[in-house]
Amino acid sequence: MKEQKYSVFLMNVGSCADRYCPGYGRPFSTQELFERCAGIPQLSGVDIVATPDLMQEKALVQQCVQETGLEVVSIAADTFTEEKWRQGSFSAPDPEVRAQAVEHGKAVMDWCDELGTDLLTLWLGQDGFDYIFQADYIQMREWLIEGIRELCDYRPDMRVGLEYKLKEPRTHSLVSTVGTTALTVQAIARENCGVILDYGHALLGQENPAESVAILKQFGDLLMHVHINDNFRYWDDDMIVGSVHCHEFMEFFYWLERTGYDGWITIDQFPYREDGRDAVAESAEWLELLRQKSLSVDADEIAEVLRQKDGVAASRLMRKLIGGTR
Amino acid sequence: MKEQKYSVFLMNVGSCADRYCPGYGRPFSTQELFERCAGIPQLSGVDIVATPDLMQEKALVQQCVQETGLEVVSIAADTFTEEKWRQGSFSAPDPEVRAQAVEHGKAVMDWCDELGTDLLTLWLGQDGFDYIFQADYIQMREWLIEGIRELCDYRPDMRVGLEYKLKEPRTHSLVSTVGTTALTVQAIARENCGVILDYGHALLGQENPAESVAILKQFGDLLMHVHINDNFRYWDDDMIVGSVHCHEFMEFFYWLERTGYDGWITIDQFPYREDGRDAVAESAEWLELLRQKSLSVDADEIAEVLRQKDGVAASRLMRKLIGGTR
Amino acid sequence: MKEQKYSVFLMNVGSCADRYCPGYGRPFSTQELFERCAGIPQLSGVDIVATPDLMQEKALVQQCVQETGLEVVSIAADTFTEEKWRQGSFSAPDPEVRAQAVEHGKAVMDWCDELGTDLLTLWLGQDGFDYIFQADYIQMREWLIEGIRELCDYRPDMRVGLEYKLKEPRTHSLVSTVGTTALTVQAIARENCGVILDYGHALLGQENPAESVAILKQFGDLLMHVHINDNFRYWDDDMIVGSVHCHEFMEFFYWLERTGYDGWITIDQFPYREDGRDAVAESAEWLELLRQKSLSVDADEIAEVLRQKDGVAASRLMRKLIGGTR
Amino acid sequence: MKEQKYSVFLMNVGSCADRYCPGYGRPFSTQELFERCAGIPQLSGVDIVATPDLMQEKALVQQCVQETGLEVVSIAADTFTEEKWRQGSFSAPDPEVRAQAVEHGKAVMDWCDELGTDLLTLWLGQDGFDYIFQADYIQMREWLIEGIRELCDYRPDMRVGLEYKLKEPRTHSLVSTVGTTALTVQAIARENCGVILDYGHALLGQENPAESVAILKQFGDLLMHVHINDNFRYWDDDMIVGSVHCHEFMEFFYWLERTGYDGWITIDQFPYREDGRDAVAESAEWLELLRQKSLSVDADEIAEVLRQKDGVAASRLMRKLIGGTR
Repeated sequence: MKEQKYSVFLMNVGSCADRYCPGYGRPFSTQELFERCAGIPQLSGVDIVATPDLMQEKALVQQCVQETGLEVVSIAADTFTEEKWRQGSFSAPDPEVRAQAVEHGKAVMDWCDELGTDLLTLWLGQDGFDYIFQADYIQMREWLIEGIRELCDYRPDMRVGLEYKLKEPRTHSLVSTVGTTALTVQAIARENCGVILDYGHALLGQENPAESVAILKQFGDLLMHVHINDNFRYWDDDMIVGSVHCHEFMEFFYWLERTGYDGWITIDQFPYREDGRDAVAESAEWLELLRQKSLSVDADEIAEVLRQKDGVAASRLMRKLIGGTR
Repeated sequence: MKEQKYSVFLMNVGSCADRYCPGYGRPFSTQELFERCAGIPQLSGVDIVATPDLMQEKALVQQCVQETGLEVVSIAADTFTEEKWRQGSFSAPDPEVRAQAVEHGKAVMDWCDELGTDLLTLWLGQDGFDYIFQADYIQMREWLIEGIRELCDYRPDMRVGLEYKLKEPRTHSLVSTVGTTALTVQAIARENCGVILDYGHALLGQENPAESVAILKQFGDLLMHVHINDNFRYWDDDMIVGSVHCHEFMEFFYWLERTGYDGWITIDQFPYREDGRDAVAESAEWLELLRQKSLSVDADEIAEVLRQKDGVAASRLMRKLIGGTR
Repeated sequence: MKEQKYSVFLMNVGSCADRYCPGYGRPFSTQELFERCAGIPQLSGVDIVATPDLMQEKALVQQCVQETGLEVVSIAADTFTEEKWRQGSFSAPDPEVRAQAVEHGKAVMDWCDELGTDLLTLWLGQDGFDYIFQADYIQMREWLIEGIRELCDYRPDMRVGLEYKLKEPRTHSLVSTVGTTALTVQAIARENCGVILDYGHALLGQENPAESVAILKQFGDLLMHVHINDNFRYWDDDMIVGSVHCHEFMEFFYWLERTGYDGWITIDQFPYREDGRDAVAESAEWLELLRQKSLSVDADEIAEVLRQKDGVAASRLMRKLIGGTR
Repeated sequence: MKEQKYSVFLMNVGSCADRYCPGYGRPFSTQELFERCAGIPQLSGVDIVATPDLMQEKALVQQCVQETGLEVVSIAADTFTEEKWRQGSFSAPDPEVRAQAVEHGKAVMDWCDELGTDLLTLWLGQDGFDYIFQADYIQMREWLIEGIRELCDYRPDMRVGLEYKLKEPRTHSLVSTVGTTALTVQAIARENCGVILDYGHALLGQENPAESVAILKQFGDLLMHVHINDNFRYWDDDMIVGSVHCHEFMEFFYWLERTGYDGWITIDQFPYREDGRDAVAESAEWLELLRQKSLSVDADEIAEVLRQKDGVAASRLMRKLIGGTR
């Protein structure tokens, strides 16, 4: 069995806020966060969000990386935690804001290089709209495409991944589904541009995440990175992996394997009321458990079930994977 | 481990239609259907819908019951397959239709008695509304309450169970959720009136089915019968049990046990494209598998986890139940 | 046409945060917030949340109320903005937290009295659960019922209203739907306990809000207060009233009128990216517009349409209300 | 104001079935259906589904078209009403079924020609999957692409439009969203292949239908035809246009106009419990009402609101369109 590399977003082992409660737990220092990540056996990498605070601590981050031995898997541009992005970043109506988004993206690409990763994550949560009759859809998307293309051209040695999500914090995102995102990447038309699939985002968008992996393979081999968590399908609950669903994770692993994905899987959750480290550790345990189960039946046997296209055969396979076939 | 009795709706082992395709498989005779049910080892009961056709075959049904040895668990009144019910049955605006609904209900209660069961199932799929400004909500519900009360009074030796469902075939049902149904049963105010919980209906109404069991215990010990199937949470997909979710079935079994439910569990699914018998057999296998898993951890240990009210502890318990704890 | 009194939550005219962005606009002082509310012509009342900060400013609040002439419609207990409530308030596993919830509720009731209102609002957002197998549903609800009953008994001269919401910030709330809330109020069994209906919460719970008004009338005349806003049905988007739907607001007004509701309607929205005052002023304009439209057709004519129970007749009525019938 | 041409699906003025009730009304003959369509003043066209029954009546259809003077707007291939398509048509696992799908598609293209339209509608409702682990996503989509390409090549003088829908009758469709459909059309890579947008399908897929029009313009000018109806966002309720939403229809008309769409709009609904003709006539009234409202504000003024990207400005515009601005 090939090894799968797991990472986690640094902030996941800390505390969370929501729109009602500004903090469900105590703040953690950057060093503490790195140490907490490093203490989880299954994890060998870390993903970072380039918040203003953290970009003030570049030397400290560098030091933490070295001390913990964690690999930096990707840095996400932060175009969503500050008021100035409230009407979008690359697609904002204000040209000054759009310029700042591009500038920030370039700075993060340089930081990626310094920290030894070639992957910039773009999750454009504020680039969307809330109200009917609020937006010029074509103009917004054109600006977004232009801005990201400029990033791709700035550092052709780096990869730029677009992470899609149907909604939240806006009621509608521009980079919304596997389909619109693949179209957008095609329009950007740069070799170093691709897609980041967040399992929970796919689920809340009523996608079957395994099918989304297949779609990204089929329409240009676009998958660059994977985020993982669980939810109740209606919202980005960002819960512990495997705490709601089992079968879909196993199918997801099967299709990652089959399409030759050899990148990282990064845990990305919001443990509002749980201890962040314990919640991430739980996800890591589930990931290995479900991945092993997904590999417990031979890939050829699974392929044969898929060929039959029969619901009963699929159910039998899932029972076998879960461990209950007589 | 106490034995759990399983049943199935007779039609489930046959063929299905939907609004596009009038038949995804060949028709089956009543005898064939009974034989197919009887051929599934885990099942010892059968539930029947009192369609006009079947009520013409009472002698045949009686004979099939005797020959197969299946116990008749309940008969459901049919207030949904004929055009006359299109604006409702017990709550229809036409007093003649309401009278027919009561008359039909009484006839089915008598048939229940003949077939050795004391449970009338009322799933009032046509009693609801589709459009905004289409209905007088108070008047409809009053008629519905009156009509069902009349049934309860007709045969105090029989039980009358209301099966709730948020929607479909109407966009809104009157007997919609665990809460409105318990209120309605309280308003009917008869000892022999209670609630039938369909697991998939609870799920599509965004209920946690185990919590719904607890609610029915807490507010009057109202649970009379259980239907089971699986879905993707958005719609009554009526799929094979366990084919989408695992944990919630295990929690559901735990709460049935804890609240002292000692009735039947009836498989109720629509195998549009599958062989009906095979799909039901799959559900039966899953039911036993998941029930055994739910009982694999001591009830006291589960109660202790619930007392902690911690997401991480819940996740660990679920991993243990699924069989993956180290 | 009878006058309808409108209020707004004080914080609505200020700035909002979400889980990503700690502030989409500048902070406003309490005085500024009161002045901004007072500047909106249609509003004559204000609702307050008893946050720790505001409870430190009781004298200032008193003064603002006097200066602006706004009537205090209700004060909401704050059992959701502090870390200590993260596993619930009245239903928390920790008896000390439950005691604090009761104590806080009593203090807010006294403050209500000081500010000239008799209505305590309880929105118990943290009283619920996130994970499967996380909670003892029966025990939680018992504690919740006991605690609220204690409040009702503390001040029989005051009213205690439970505001329901299906979910958020928990994935599942205890006080979730119109049905479970009415059952809970019945179990509390105190004359001064009732229900607060938030229009948007009803919508996201897949209720028809007008039907929910009817249900609360029918099962005990329980409606005490109304909150209003709009959303896309999937989530509590807390948007400007009328910005997504029109017909359902008109039907809602019709049923409020018909059931004899004579209380306030309080705007309750989250203008993340809008100017708070302007967004509230918009809602006030829409409310009057849609209420006038709902009253533009005679109530008897509407009742006659409802009696017909015909989708086409309902559609014709809505076209007439919107102003488009030929 | 430019004239907008409206059509209707022939069956819409007849009777419907669902999975419970095989018929909510009496059957209508083909002649009756044509006459009922022709009796609705706003309609000048008709869309047809090439069911086996109707393909036996080609001469009669021809005659009805001539007698009523209705223009045939498009014919939809019927790959969803017969048992043989239950595991798909162009993507079915059985090569014989795939061949039949292609053959049927060609026959319908020829019939289109005979009836004076150049547009073949492909709604591939059975091409999808129900269960996790049931399908080989890549293989299915390849077959689907190949089959449709063959149709495009068969008659380069005809247009082939793919109508997408997230789900139903399968729990997951292959041609699912605006994004995946545009990708599929790009992969088919034929000039005469495009997209058919069903307003209600877009809505249930959580798309903003106006944005979907913009996306189809931006990524290849792919929009070929429009179907229209209304729903509660969760399901393809196929209700009377305007009976649930108003603003989104107005925005939709604005974007159709702005992107230069000059095709037909075809009413496509399921009047289960209504008189079919009356329900269609209602939709026609609503369409003209909402279209006129959408044109009541100058396009430049709307464009200016969109440029502002402000929720309050959007709300004000919608109030103005609805007719309520002071």
